[in-house]
Amino acid sequence: MDERMHVERVSRSRCFGGHQDVYEHDSPTLGCQMRFAVYLPSRSQREPCPVLYFLSGLTCSEQNAITKAGAQRHCEDHGIVLVCPDTSPRGPGVPDDPADDLGQGAGFYLNATQLPWSRNYRMFDYLTAELPQLVQGNFPVTEARGICGHSMGGNGALVLALSRPDLFRSVSALAPIASPMHCPWGEKAFKAYLGEDREAWRRYDACELVASHAGPAIAVLVDQGTDDGFLTKQLKPELLEAAAKGSRVSLELRRQPGYDHGYYFISTFIGDHVAHHARMLRG
Amino acid sequence: MDERMHVERVSRSRCFGGHQDVYEHDSPTLGCQMRFAVYLPSRSQREPCPVLYFLSGLTCSEQNAITKAGAQRHCEDHGIVLVCPDTSPRGPGVPDDPADDLGQGAGFYLNATQLPWSRNYRMFDYLTAELPQLVQGNFPVTEARGICGHSMGGNGALVLALSRPDLFRSVSALAPIASPMHCPWGEKAFKAYLGEDREAWRRYDACELVASHAGPAIAVLVDQGTDDGFLTKQLKPELLEAAAKGSRVSLELRRQPGYDHGYYFISTFIGDHVAHHARMLRG
Repeated sequence: MDERMHVERVSRSRCFGGHQDVYEHDSPTLGCQMRFAVYLPSRSQREPCPVLYFLSGLTCSEQNAITKAGAQRHCEDHGIVLVCPDTSPRGPGVPDDPADDLGQGAGFYLNATQLPWSRNYRMFDYLTAELPQLVQGNFPVTEARGICGHSMGGNGALVLALSRPDLFRSVSALAPIASPMHCPWGEKAFKAYLGEDREAWRRYDACELVASHAGPAIAVLVDQGTDDGFLTKQLKPELLEAAAKGSRVSLELRRQPGYDHGYYFISTFIGDHVAHHARMLRG
Repeated sequence: MDERMHVERVSRSRCFGGHQDVYEHDSPTLGCQMRFAVYLPSRSQREPCPVLYFLSGLTCSEQNAITKAGAQRHCEDHGIVLVCPDTSPRGPGVPDDPADDLGQGAGFYLNATQLPWSRNYRMFDYLTAELPQLVQGNFPVTEARGICGHSMGGNGALVLALSRPDLFRSVSALAPIASPMHCPWGEKAFKAYLGEDREAWRRYDACELVASHAGPAIAVLVDQGTDDGFLTKQLKPELLEAAAKGSRVSLELRRQPGYDHGYYFISTFIGDHVAHHARMLRG
């Protein structure tokens, strides 16, 4: 096997009849050692299964979703392999910032063009080339891939799916940052990673890609809690609704009364998201 | 209301249609401020519901079970209020030990008799008097109570239920320490909290209480992973099986192949435990 395809298992726990694993590998794309989590449903021991990628939000590693979201039960039910990557390159040699919304834990799933970020912060390439190849080469999976994400990872999932419909067949988001170009988190990060020219930001903005989507019609499921503390200043789901109007993106945006931004919200609705992906990936 | 009955809500999140809350209160029993978590299913907004207490293992606070076990979904389905206490008294004024298996986070659900522990470490009294009264006085609950626990909390649940069948109508455990008197964790803690006289240890040992149970026949559900790293040295489920033989405790011990000691194991089987309690508490 190609040395670049080598992954090392750092943990394995049986879970809902399948296995929750964590792997480590040297990433040439990101120039550092990376971890990702893989849930293998029991069905994957008998036949290859579709893969759902889950992109987490600010500050998260590959651990948050697998310990708190409770997605494994649903992935076991539907025979879906779940891959949870980290949210940025990591480690002492990787540029960082003391703030929670820039640097390690805040990669925004893009390819940075500005120093000091541009050498390591290439999460878009990592998630559209290196990681899918690693997953394909090491696990019992089919070519059917879906992508889902939360908050920063919600924008990431929409951007990745709409940029690469050849790679991702289904997409959904939980409390996504609808338009990083139009909120403080996104403007700060995009300026640092991509520079002052806002034209260069558009390819990483979910609303921009939804509005201009010219590919095959695609159904997008989005859940958003109405008591989410970031709703009006950072997330702005109304921008996503406006962008979807008249586009080839069929958006089902569900406003969930009383829910906040955290994992209790995610765990409540993740089952609907796994089912949405299973319909598209196994249909 | 009696000042001693006052609780303050420190967080609330909507979750599976109900609410996951955390409360704080001054505990006269323990001589410190304590937190406990309460999941209120939607049904509790219409009518009082039975209560299930969940006792966590070494190092845990009230947070671990509510973020990782995924029990809320099942409590919503069955209309059960879930109360998750902390595992010991807490705070700078409370004696502690640098080890993970003694002091704060390791209260073993007993009343300590030895200095310096005896002033604060009265978790048995806290869980059989103060906390049930607080819960009864502040939340929409019936008098039907069950108790479940993991590891140290598994022994705690069995001890509490068998000592106080008037208080707890149903009991179950996940990977319990079957007999603290016969394992390193338990021997170390019991010696510190209760002194050298092993006679005084018996009332806090699940196997002792199972073997001598003279009350009404009781059905106990226990799950134990076969790949649990603590199985042979600390947990010893075979001692529980031996103690139940010929006693009025009807033990269903399920050995779950390949599962370890962690929350992936708990989350896989907690649904069966909530259902077990719901049958007894609503039957």
